[in-house]
Amino acid sequence: MAKHASNPMDEARDQVTTGPIYRSEKLYDDVVFDGSPFDAEDAVLRIPVRRINLTDGTHFDAYDTSGPYTETDADPDLHGGLPKIRESWPTPAPAPASSESPELAASTQLAWARAGITTPEMAFIAAREGVDAELVRTEVAAGRAVICANRNHPELEPMIIGKKFAVKVNANIGNSVVTSSIAEEVEKMVWATRWGADTIMDLSTGADIHETREWILRNSPVPVGTVPIYQALEKVNGDPAALTWEIYRDTVIEQAEQGVDYMTVHAGVLLRYVPLAANRVTGIVSRGGSIMAAWCLAHHRESFLYENFAELCDIFARYDITFSLGDGLRPGSIADANDEAQFAELRTLGELTKIAKSRGVQVMIEGPGHVPMHKIAENVRLEEEWCEEAPFYTLGPLATDIAPGYDHITSAIGAAMIAQAGTAMLCYVTPKEHLGLPDRDDVKVGVITYKIAAHSADLAKGLPRAQERDDALSKARFEFRWHDQFALALDPDTALYYHDETLPAEPAKTAHFCSMCGPKFCSMRISQDVRDYAKEHGLETVEAIEAGMAEKSEEFEAAGGRVYLPLSAE
Amino acid sequence: MAKHASNPMDEARDQVTTGPIYRSEKLYDDVVFDGSPFDAEDAVLRIPVRRINLTDGTHFDAYDTSGPYTETDADPDLHGGLPKIRESWPTPAPAPASSESPELAASTQLAWARAGITTPEMAFIAAREGVDAELVRTEVAAGRAVICANRNHPELEPMIIGKKFAVKVNANIGNSVVTSSIAEEVEKMVWATRWGADTIMDLSTGADIHETREWILRNSPVPVGTVPIYQALEKVNGDPAALTWEIYRDTVIEQAEQGVDYMTVHAGVLLRYVPLAANRVTGIVSRGGSIMAAWCLAHHRESFLYENFAELCDIFARYDITFSLGDGLRPGSIADANDEAQFAELRTLGELTKIAKSRGVQVMIEGPGHVPMHKIAENVRLEEEWCEEAPFYTLGPLATDIAPGYDHITSAIGAAMIAQAGTAMLCYVTPKEHLGLPDRDDVKVGVITYKIAAHSADLAKGLPRAQERDDALSKARFEFRWHDQFALALDPDTALYYHDETLPAEPAKTAHFCSMCGPKFCSMRISQDVRDYAKEHGLETVEAIEAGMAEKSEEFEAAGGRVYLPLSAE
Repeated sequence: MAKHASNPMDEARDQVTTGPIYRSEKLYDDVVFDGSPFDAEDAVLRIPVRRINLTDGTHFDAYDTSGPYTETDADPDLHGGLPKIRESWPTPAPAPASSESPELAASTQLAWARAGITTPEMAFIAAREGVDAELVRTEVAAGRAVICANRNHPELEPMIIGKKFAVKVNANIGNSVVTSSIAEEVEKMVWATRWGADTIMDLSTGADIHETREWILRNSPVPVGTVPIYQALEKVNGDPAALTWEIYRDTVIEQAEQGVDYMTVHAGVLLRYVPLAANRVTGIVSRGGSIMAAWCLAHHRESFLYENFAELCDIFARYDITFSLGDGLRPGSIADANDEAQFAELRTLGELTKIAKSRGVQVMIEGPGHVPMHKIAENVRLEEEWCEEAPFYTLGPLATDIAPGYDHITSAIGAAMIAQAGTAMLCYVTPKEHLGLPDRDDVKVGVITYKIAAHSADLAKGLPRAQERDDALSKARFEFRWHDQFALALDPDTALYYHDETLPAEPAKTAHFCSMCGPKFCSMRISQDVRDYAKEHGLETVEAIEAGMAEKSEEFEAAGGRVYLPLSAE
Repeated sequence: MAKHASNPMDEARDQVTTGPIYRSEKLYDDVVFDGSPFDAEDAVLRIPVRRINLTDGTHFDAYDTSGPYTETDADPDLHGGLPKIRESWPTPAPAPASSESPELAASTQLAWARAGITTPEMAFIAAREGVDAELVRTEVAAGRAVICANRNHPELEPMIIGKKFAVKVNANIGNSVVTSSIAEEVEKMVWATRWGADTIMDLSTGADIHETREWILRNSPVPVGTVPIYQALEKVNGDPAALTWEIYRDTVIEQAEQGVDYMTVHAGVLLRYVPLAANRVTGIVSRGGSIMAAWCLAHHRESFLYENFAELCDIFARYDITFSLGDGLRPGSIADANDEAQFAELRTLGELTKIAKSRGVQVMIEGPGHVPMHKIAENVRLEEEWCEEAPFYTLGPLATDIAPGYDHITSAIGAAMIAQAGTAMLCYVTPKEHLGLPDRDDVKVGVITYKIAAHSADLAKGLPRAQERDDALSKARFEFRWHDQFALALDPDTALYYHDETLPAEPAKTAHFCSMCGPKFCSMRISQDVRDYAKEHGLETVEAIEAGMAEKSEEFEAAGGRVYLPLSAE
């Protein structure tokens, strides 16, 4: 059972990881936001950047999700929380009701975007992604991108989720009834964002669920998502049949007040879909989905989430919370992928998307799960068709079921492919999936693995500038700048550790070979010599080669006949 | 520098891993091969099977690559080597020269297949893959599949590499000048095949290169590949310019006599292609490719491998060695993918394929390397077009360059996709790629990761029976048969270990929940209860639900209103 010290944060303070990443420094690019349209002072937006300093005197600036924790001499005040940066930003007046949004005047990023207003959050994101603010605004206005930013989460550094931007990664954390403490969960958040998690979801189900969330929110620089039905279920002692709309609604308001930025709502699990899942190999594998299915069946009534969806939208609009419409009937095995239950629910999520957007509320759609490679693209196609291209947010999917213990990998395959097809955010899977709760190391492996999938998709989609980091690292590799290769890696510490396991001495990090081939067989080195030789002797073109300059060959032979000089280590 | 005991195998004997895999037993299915067409006795082919025994009294039979080492009470005689099973098999007479193979009468699987002869190796493979022997024969005859089986490797359990069969995985082992001993390499072979490696390549470059290979071959149940130019280079003290055709040819014959089943030959690195690689970000990253480029440039002559290719074919034909035509100009970075150098060489490999096949020699084609996802399919398309659909054998490819330390994962993404597109064998990549030499753990992680990629592709290609293992594991998962879930996993030991880290007690392996959600939130359990409830109450169809049986609901509520009973652990 969960155990923690009487003040959980005294423990956390010792545990939280601070300081710069290997050979990097945390910088902020200041961007001035013009406050005059809002009758406000100008605001300075401080855009976080991780500057990776290279040994050749240049540097590489990387997108940074880690918050102030990676500043030099960072000394976070966990009790006070992070600085409330958004409090000083100008806030636009509510956007007027419009034909698209007839129900109410709304103060949401969606409503403002539709009204043509660029918010500070949009400007922050544009600078962070290196794109024009107008692209941010129009994508949000179209509902193709979302900015998860509860007005009660002023500590947030805004980010965007949408297919025209870099693919994002979510890390799930949260204690369960079986194990783990609040302090551990706060450190998991800091740790996950250090390695690149763009959002985190607090899936706590055990004791201290409110307090855990409070500590996470006040200290989180990234959007925080939750699944409110977990806490609602705690309030009725774990009996799904005892849930009511009122208990659920009050739970949502409680979490909204705390500042939760997006919430998973399984409002698409309709009574009539439950039998569709009865004969599956793995039934219903979503916790929220199974709870709602149990409720519907027990009462033989339509889902209270579905029936009260409009009221829920209006609560969300008040805080600018984003819907993450949950796929309660997602497949839990290869056998169940793309089946009737899954796609029936997806169609309903499309209906709900329209309702939410008409009330000024941002929406993203959750996706599977377990899907073989040849069925992945269809998921994106139908989601885009039925849900008006709302950002897709998928869990993996796992491309096979046969590798528990390696499901970060089975799912990274599916994740990379589904992101290439248009998915905007990937929910990570750790090596412990299906087996146990992830610890700190598992969280890191999960995040890095998903950064790989996301970045691979950015490359495949031709995202401007995505390849710059690949090129910088490959150039460092070719030039045997080992420290730069490590520094540019997604996980410098592990790269350095693996290198040092075989060749620990510092001179090996400048040696023009490595442990794999040794000096004689180093293709990189021979290749460099070939390049130098070709250049010196005018053999850089096919034409020159074909002209048959035999004398060059003789000259070369006369000079010793070797394309490289032996190293003393040889 | 390499260090080993005076008799390296005394050390190896202690190191080699034996005994069954978790809850499995090694069996052999006996298949009688009719010897009469060959004027020989009938032969009994013993097809290896790993039988996974399940707790519900059933079993699952899996393809097995592990050789006799996983037999109960296995006690291998490493000095004597494995039993020479192929020696007792009938050998067909040489196939006559034909219009397709005008040059010579050949005793190769290709020549026999073309002559309509089903060899014992083909029959063995058909039983092993669960397909008709005629499919094996016709695919080999067409050159779309290869059977790597040197007549001097009688210890071999034959296997097939071709896109109509299960995707295969190769594991590279081999010492280098910097580290590792013979004994370690033999254990790596045993270890890699235990976890599913279908072939191994001995890439030794250091001392004792001949002796290392001899020990590996005599004890290997899977095909062994090499890159002969590595040993040839050792013979000229590491100076590429000093290589000659004669030294190379003699090295090939030395290895052929030992029983090497396939050899990588970089005969497509032509003099005129070298400048094409000069301005790449990462030049030439293939060791063999860089050696040949250096030779061509130093002598300003065409490659001796290209110029003597026909003679090389005739040597290969004598032993039935399969060509693995090396991609010496493969890209070593995302920036260099699918460039002119790479595809110029691939076209030449197509030329060489035709020459080899015309001389009765089997061929596969090596592929990249580093390729972003959107450029993967083109590699397969051009390979098939230019190389007559010879089996494609790729190294990854890595889908991004930015994650050294995780390149088993960056490359598993590319590997799964390229296999889905038609690649027949995947060369594994370990977490140490670019950083150091893999140890035993790295070899296992590399093999398991690549089994995931290969199996994901089998699923996506709709290979008959591929999904059976996924279904069996998912069913075990849904029914909380934990031991069966572990046993059916690609790596049962790791799955068990991860589970026990959180919930170590034996009762937890029969509990109907796990550590992730705890008993209250277990979707699998609620889902099972939903299924049971629906069944009992006739609510299994949409129609029944829609008939609105409110009384069922009342009945349920009267019975306690809970869809599951609390566990005592709650």
